Amino acid sequence: MLKDRKFICENVSVNGEGHLCFSGVDVTTLAKRYGTPLYIMDESRIRDRCRIYRETLKKTFDGQAFAAYASKAASFKELYRIMASENMYIDVVSSGEIYTAAAAGFPMRNAFFHSNNKTDEDVRFAIENGVGYFVADNAEELKAIEREAEKAGIVQNVLLRITPGIDPHTFAAVTTGKVDSKFGSAIQTGQAKEITELALTKKHITLSGYHCHVGSQVFSVDVYTKTAEIMLNFIANIKSSLGFSAQILNLGGGFGVRYLPTDPEVDIEKNIIILSEKIKTSCAALGLKVPTIILEPGRSIVADAGMTVYTVGTVKKIPDFVNYVSVDGGMTDNVRYAMYKANYTLLTANKMNEALTMKANIAGRCCESGDVIQEHVPVPASIKRGDIIACLTTGAYNYSMASNYNRLPRPPIVMINNGESRIAVNRETFSDICALDV
Amino acid sequence: MLKDRKFICENVSVNGEGHLCFSGVDVTTLAKRYGTPLYIMDESRIRDRCRIYRETLKKTFDGQAFAAYASKAASFKELYRIMASENMYIDVVSSGEIYTAAAAGFPMRNAFFHSNNKTDEDVRFAIENGVGYFVADNAEELKAIEREAEKAGIVQNVLLRITPGIDPHTFAAVTTGKVDSKFGSAIQTGQAKEITELALTKKHITLSGYHCHVGSQVFSVDVYTKTAEIMLNFIANIKSSLGFSAQILNLGGGFGVRYLPTDPEVDIEKNIIILSEKIKTSCAALGLKVPTIILEPGRSIVADAGMTVYTVGTVKKIPDFVNYVSVDGGMTDNVRYAMYKANYTLLTANKMNEALTMKANIAGRCCESGDVIQEHVPVPASIKRGDIIACLTTGAYNYSMASNYNRLPRPPIVMINNGESRIAVNRETFSDICALDV
Repeated sequence: MLKDRKFICENVSVNGEGHLCFSGVDVTTLAKRYGTPLYIMDESRIRDRCRIYRETLKKTFDGQAFAAYASKAASFKELYRIMASENMYIDVVSSGEIYTAAAAGFPMRNAFFHSNNKTDEDVRFAIENGVGYFVADNAEELKAIEREAEKAGIVQNVLLRITPGIDPHTFAAVTTGKVDSKFGSAIQTGQAKEITELALTKKHITLSGYHCHVGSQVFSVDVYTKTAEIMLNFIANIKSSLGFSAQILNLGGGFGVRYLPTDPEVDIEKNIIILSEKIKTSCAALGLKVPTIILEPGRSIVADAGMTVYTVGTVKKIPDFVNYVSVDGGMTDNVRYAMYKANYTLLTANKMNEALTMKANIAGRCCESGDVIQEHVPVPASIKRGDIIACLTTGAYNYSMASNYNRLPRPPIVMINNGESRIAVNRETFSDICALDV
Repeated sequence: MLKDRKFICENVSVNGEGHLCFSGVDVTTLAKRYGTPLYIMDESRIRDRCRIYRETLKKTFDGQAFAAYASKAASFKELYRIMASENMYIDVVSSGEIYTAAAAGFPMRNAFFHSNNKTDEDVRFAIENGVGYFVADNAEELKAIEREAEKAGIVQNVLLRITPGIDPHTFAAVTTGKVDSKFGSAIQTGQAKEITELALTKKHITLSGYHCHVGSQVFSVDVYTKTAEIMLNFIANIKSSLGFSAQILNLGGGFGVRYLPTDPEVDIEKNIIILSEKIKTSCAALGLKVPTIILEPGRSIVADAGMTVYTVGTVKKIPDFVNYVSVDGGMTDNVRYAMYKANYTLLTANKMNEALTMKANIAGRCCESGDVIQEHVPVPASIKRGDIIACLTTGAYNYSMASNYNRLPRPPIVMINNGESRIAVNRETFSDICALDV
């Protein structure tokens, strides 16, 4: 039965009219009300993911573990309000993210400030905003933090970013824990120890511990247990060689999400339990007190809480070649296919009960042949101008990476919760796009 | 001698202080005055390229050929003012580009409106703004143009986009003239003739001729002579079968530019002369009057008139692996390496007389390992925080594709001319980035 279909996420369903629903709300109704292209976000799904991380971490680590939302996945004020109300920590990577979170009233003492290249201005701005923890990437940053903290008359909590040398076998461009990375200091080269020694000399820095991040869209918990083992060994070596006991171990983010029905489902709770057991065993073997553990989920908090809705414009059938269905968005609102050949599931939202007897490339409206959202997508043969297409799992790295290429305005973000919808980010206008032009 | 060095474009030089100059202006001075990251554009180079196209076309086609600037390469008000003053036509691909050009006072009768997917709103907006020529991609667009032109009580000039079936052997993602393209109607499948027949039935449409575009960054004029031959044969076939004589043949854009010193230099004037001879010969052989020829250069007008200037933050040496020099911009202001592995030439602007004894990956500041501007770039071994790095040939598809990923503000565009500089697009602020957030 079509109505018993399972989709890649439980918040996707079909109603009696054969329309796609997201968190129970008819997607075609939202398209009509707010226009397209349109980002929709399911608040209850976001809150649910936060709770799973928070409660499982609390339970398995006896209250000494926390989740920090990696806001580069999607950063706008309303999301920081949700994170604040869920008692989540956040991970920010720039002054712009700090500005946005602070403007939303997020308590910045619960923020970790990452990035491979903080300018002096960034360091100053973060201190002014009371950012709880810097994750210092390198020696120059440490010096800048020391300088600015001294000026401000404070002692700043700092973690050091370490590259554990793990290749999580994900796509190279989203693999950041290898030795030859622009991020952090490698254990293998001795530089991780060197930067620890430097940090310990700074009077306006409290070295709280270490951070690492091995990659994105990782499905195997083994990657994390292996990473934790390497990091705990490092912490034990530092303790014995330098006498420094790390209080915090921040293991970064990276749990995968489902873009296609064939992608495995990550059981976050189970993974955290496995990870906690490994950490406790390793600490016991190494004679270490279990440090406070931080995980930094981004994609797994927001990706499947997001959906992009488009209106079909052109339907083009090229006999013996391929069919194209062009929609009113594209690489401007979702650059991930153009950039990574990323997979997505696309559905014809107003024709969910029709048989999918045709395949088409879903193309964007940019004047660039690489502007395709997905190739060989099953669609109903009746597909035509005015139909509504939904692209699932777009909550992470879609709005945040959006551009005005071809001078296309960025779509609004509509948040849905308990059957109600509200605007979280307004639709950009042509006037907005030209606002900075002289 | 270092001072006799030739760079990839004649507007790049080195002054007595060993500083990089762009159009004679010290780049480090501009970095200090306007801050970094910074886009600089050389107005005289832009005007020079316009003149070469305009005058060569005029001369070789007896006044019956024009150049239209493909504004998707870079679209902001000041550029449209320059195009207006150079008597250039423009190619626009969206309502956003139409809005920007019209707001700058560009005479919209001299605009060609492209794109594979014009919505009904786009068609209406373009007609309201008096766009001279629609380039209709498909039958649905033709119907929408007919409908809106009738409502407006006008007869709209229209070209039809045709896919000639040429693979210009450039990168697949920027190859748009092949049969299996989201753009236009293929000659090979008979669809180009069908859409001509449809257009000829429309009362509020004047069919002016045809458009095609075979790809980007093309170095061989043979691609264009071959394309012209195919298109003229098609025009002759249509004339004999349907009795329709095309008045305009718009051959699109695509002449390549130099990103590296090893890239060939395209002699635009020579190419146009070769093309004009081929077109005249073909027309004579086919018994055709030479149609009005339009070329649509984008990249070759603005690419080497642009430069991006960054400040070095982190310098990281990973023994036995690689060196990283992180700058204060990245994939947010130049996504082309992350997206296409595009080549660029990078220079250390304040140390142009130092020997380049080290190689480094120039990394951006985004929290993403794929955020690299270029790998294995020769730099002086003394490179350090505060140094200025210039990335050449960034005038096309850099600002236009820029994003706020990581909530990074987009750089300003500073236009230089006769040794003077002025802001053409203001620097984005954090407040601007949050302006649409609820």
